[in-house]
Amino acid sequence: MPSSQNAPNINALPSPSIGQYLLDRLHDYGILHIFGVPGDYVLRFNKLIENHSDIKFINTVRENTAGYAADGYARMRGLGVACITYGVGINISNALSQAYVESSPLVAISGAAGVEEFKQQKARHHLINTTTGPHGDRTQLEVFKNLTIDQGILDNPKTAAHIIDRVLHNCLKHKKPVYFELPRDCVDLPLPTPFTPSKHSPHISDPDALKEALSETKWILSKSSRPMIWAGHEILRFGLSQDLLSFAETFHIPIVSSLLGKTVIDEHHSLFIGVYQGEMCLKDVADAFHQCDCLLMAGLLLNDLDTGIFTAKLDQNQRISANQKGLTIGKHHYDIYFSDYIRALKDLSLTKKFHFPVKSRYSHLPKEIKSNENAKTTTKHVFQCLQQFIKPEHIIVSDVGDCLFASADLVLYYNSFMASAYFASLGFGIPGAIGAQLAEPNRRAIAIIGDGGFQMTAMELATAVRYHLDPVVILLNNHGYGTERILLEGSYNDILNWNYTLIPKVLGGGVGIKVETEQAFESALKQALSQRGEFYLIEVELEKLDFSPALNRLGELLGQEINR
Amino acid sequence: MPSSQNAPNINALPSPSIGQYLLDRLHDYGILHIFGVPGDYVLRFNKLIENHSDIKFINTVRENTAGYAADGYARMRGLGVACITYGVGINISNALSQAYVESSPLVAISGAAGVEEFKQQKARHHLINTTTGPHGDRTQLEVFKNLTIDQGILDNPKTAAHIIDRVLHNCLKHKKPVYFELPRDCVDLPLPTPFTPSKHSPHISDPDALKEALSETKWILSKSSRPMIWAGHEILRFGLSQDLLSFAETFHIPIVSSLLGKTVIDEHHSLFIGVYQGEMCLKDVADAFHQCDCLLMAGLLLNDLDTGIFTAKLDQNQRISANQKGLTIGKHHYDIYFSDYIRALKDLSLTKKFHFPVKSRYSHLPKEIKSNENAKTTTKHVFQCLQQFIKPEHIIVSDVGDCLFASADLVLYYNSFMASAYFASLGFGIPGAIGAQLAEPNRRAIAIIGDGGFQMTAMELATAVRYHLDPVVILLNNHGYGTERILLEGSYNDILNWNYTLIPKVLGGGVGIKVETEQAFESALKQALSQRGEFYLIEVELEKLDFSPALNRLGELLGQEINR
Repeated sequence: MPSSQNAPNINALPSPSIGQYLLDRLHDYGILHIFGVPGDYVLRFNKLIENHSDIKFINTVRENTAGYAADGYARMRGLGVACITYGVGINISNALSQAYVESSPLVAISGAAGVEEFKQQKARHHLINTTTGPHGDRTQLEVFKNLTIDQGILDNPKTAAHIIDRVLHNCLKHKKPVYFELPRDCVDLPLPTPFTPSKHSPHISDPDALKEALSETKWILSKSSRPMIWAGHEILRFGLSQDLLSFAETFHIPIVSSLLGKTVIDEHHSLFIGVYQGEMCLKDVADAFHQCDCLLMAGLLLNDLDTGIFTAKLDQNQRISANQKGLTIGKHHYDIYFSDYIRALKDLSLTKKFHFPVKSRYSHLPKEIKSNENAKTTTKHVFQCLQQFIKPEHIIVSDVGDCLFASADLVLYYNSFMASAYFASLGFGIPGAIGAQLAEPNRRAIAIIGDGGFQMTAMELATAVRYHLDPVVILLNNHGYGTERILLEGSYNDILNWNYTLIPKVLGGGVGIKVETEQAFESALKQALSQRGEFYLIEVELEKLDFSPALNRLGELLGQEINR
Repeated sequence: MPSSQNAPNINALPSPSIGQYLLDRLHDYGILHIFGVPGDYVLRFNKLIENHSDIKFINTVRENTAGYAADGYARMRGLGVACITYGVGINISNALSQAYVESSPLVAISGAAGVEEFKQQKARHHLINTTTGPHGDRTQLEVFKNLTIDQGILDNPKTAAHIIDRVLHNCLKHKKPVYFELPRDCVDLPLPTPFTPSKHSPHISDPDALKEALSETKWILSKSSRPMIWAGHEILRFGLSQDLLSFAETFHIPIVSSLLGKTVIDEHHSLFIGVYQGEMCLKDVADAFHQCDCLLMAGLLLNDLDTGIFTAKLDQNQRISANQKGLTIGKHHYDIYFSDYIRALKDLSLTKKFHFPVKSRYSHLPKEIKSNENAKTTTKHVFQCLQQFIKPEHIIVSDVGDCLFASADLVLYYNSFMASAYFASLGFGIPGAIGAQLAEPNRRAIAIIGDGGFQMTAMELATAVRYHLDPVVILLNNHGYGTERILLEGSYNDILNWNYTLIPKVLGGGVGIKVETEQAFESALKQALSQRGEFYLIEVELEKLDFSPALNRLGELLGQEINR
């Protein structure tokens, strides 16, 4: 993952333009692709990208899928960029919301009408409200202020470089989306010569506070006999997986992860117990979790899905929570950077190793599943079968619905899972897989999607065809919004059944296979995984009420809540 | 068009629930369909709609197309409703922006987490920021405040009816979108018994101000010899077409329309000169316009597209502008309702009839165009051919791009055109056509769309199949973002070519025909128009640089601006 402390590349002389400086900084941070849809207010910047030797513009079919793809890219690569035009760029709002909620460092860049055009306060296409102030329409900025951690209007060469540095710094510091607005008459304006880029020193915790926190942690652990780590997505986002694992290994502390933090460590590891989600998760995982007497929640958000609709057992004798907001032990709070804390844990001068007798998740896996030649496909079998073929190079990108809940039970390699597991935005699957594949060109994305989510963004497979990407898409066709059928059934949960496997023919690329038996699924999956170069779409025919065991557990919990 | 002065239906006893009251009021205002995507926070309301005897829920493929469809419905029927779930409902932002800018009365209803759930301030799926206040997440409300004219949170039975009445009143008064948020635990809460619904009396102008304005208008007209009316979309939205036309007929004043206001009157009328757009429009129209000595701008927004990038000639001796904001004559302003003013114009006690020697648009139409058997299809021929087959029952729904600019030159019947002609949002074509057909079940929508816009929302044709709607879609396949090629060419303007005519096979309904010659297009169009019951998709193969004369004129103007 690229470091946020890279020195800006300011050697390019003569002084770069605003647009050029922005691209160069993004490239410094590892950006090789920018996703987007062109439009007249952003065409000059599109041209600048086209002329950049190292960054490639990836046309997506529409704006919000550009956002999802850039979000997927950011999750794998540490930063992602979506580029849109003004006004209709507001289509990216949902991707920004998802990135905001799930802490994904996504940069949205929007072209805008020129500063001089704005001054005229005339109504122009794509503008929403031209009478809001002397600078013209600020509606998109006002909207995005709710969905981003920082924003910059790049309308002045004197301030542009500082704003770019600050906004990107905040994006990477908080792992939250940010927004740039670039008026079209400013793209090519040169920065002043010479200019001194701002310095954003790495943030360091108060050494005394950190020392006290570690000392208290040591004392708590020394009294504990069965501590456990519950690791969340922030560990992944902040690149702390190895530090956390070293701590766990040093003292032999078992680990569970949240759903959003799935694959924070290699799930084959002997200390990994499973994904814990309160009453929603596998019984073995819950049983192990319930025995712990001291819980370290690391980089975790306690939302309804991660806690099994708030059924997670949180009455351990001792609870330590370290995340972006600092460190909380019991009822008191330390205002320290959680990265500093996590990194220091492995060096705690604790002499003991724990002997918490729990079995690893991997050891629970059955050796082999036989696919029956005539048995009808079920969600359960799809995931059992998938389990046997997954390799470290695969990245599982799950959409929302049963695909997500069933995915929780897969045993996967380090950093090989992504999903909108908290914001729960349907349709992330395909664009997310496209972003992931471009971020990690040597790996292969396997997207698992229900028919409801698939219909929302299916045609983004066009982008896979255009750029020769080869995700494997497993479409779980249960004929409607399955998750909702459990909650409150009605015709609004039905959707039109498509002949999904004809989509490759429409797009002029990719392979579509429909399967109705276990054997056929296994054979299609083997074929898809063994052949690279084009996308595979495997449609799995399912009964309308075929639910994974995980979805049955969730439905029960949600149903209680919705009918309360 | 339903009247906004309908009395609320309060006869239902026992007292209705919040959700029921909302549905009943919407039905009073003419709503028979609600477009949307279900989700757990809105399921109870979905169920209520399902149980409503007169309102049908129309599942769209995704949220923003629900917004577009409801916008199209609103333009035809006077009100439209989209219903979404919380958080991911932010996907509807672009449809709200478009409706806001183009004054379409669109109601967005979002389910939300329960009031009691919010009070717990716990992180829940679909929520964006749960720490913003005691009422829980208000992010979606804050975002939509920028894009709607009024908002109501329906979390209290004591206030809900009043809020519903006020918000709907404002929607219809301003013809702008509004937003309701309905927590899932409030849908079924009964209103207090008895409750008195709020009275929103019809707004009436100050009689003295109106009298003075009319008197001044009379005086101005009496001095004029060549007055002209430039009519905009607000005349359509506020149902003033007949009043304006009566005025024009009484005094024999010629009329031009704006692009957004196209078909504000029947374009075959002898007083209709054409769509005026400054230097962008047909020469005959501009020549006629430039002769006028007194201009009445009625319900018009002066944006860049409507004014031909501000090239419209606005230096007439006298200018009167009547729109939502009131009446402006020269440099002074009357704060009166423009509806009152427009309605009174026909009764001006002006004795003369004008004799402004201009030819009607219809009289310029060539008698017949012959389709050549071997000639390759061109945009120009498509529109010439279309012109010959259009009947009053057709509704032309144009997407953005050359389809829009070329549509300007069609001669159409009253209220038979809709497009995102100012906000310029690509992808409105298909969902807009679906909304239009449901709003006017006896008419047939003809959507004209470029390949860029088509790809964004093509799969919404699934909704046409599901609900047995039969729009005719004319896909102008010019292989990329044609309008942008004129401005600044680059590979970002290219898009993947699909085998578009296979889409009906994917959806299991509809007919796809690809044409490459004039004759083939004419024959496909005839077939499509003569057969009802399923949608037709006619893909017209075009040269990459095949532009209509109108687009050539626009490109020249925009190119000057972008390179300024």
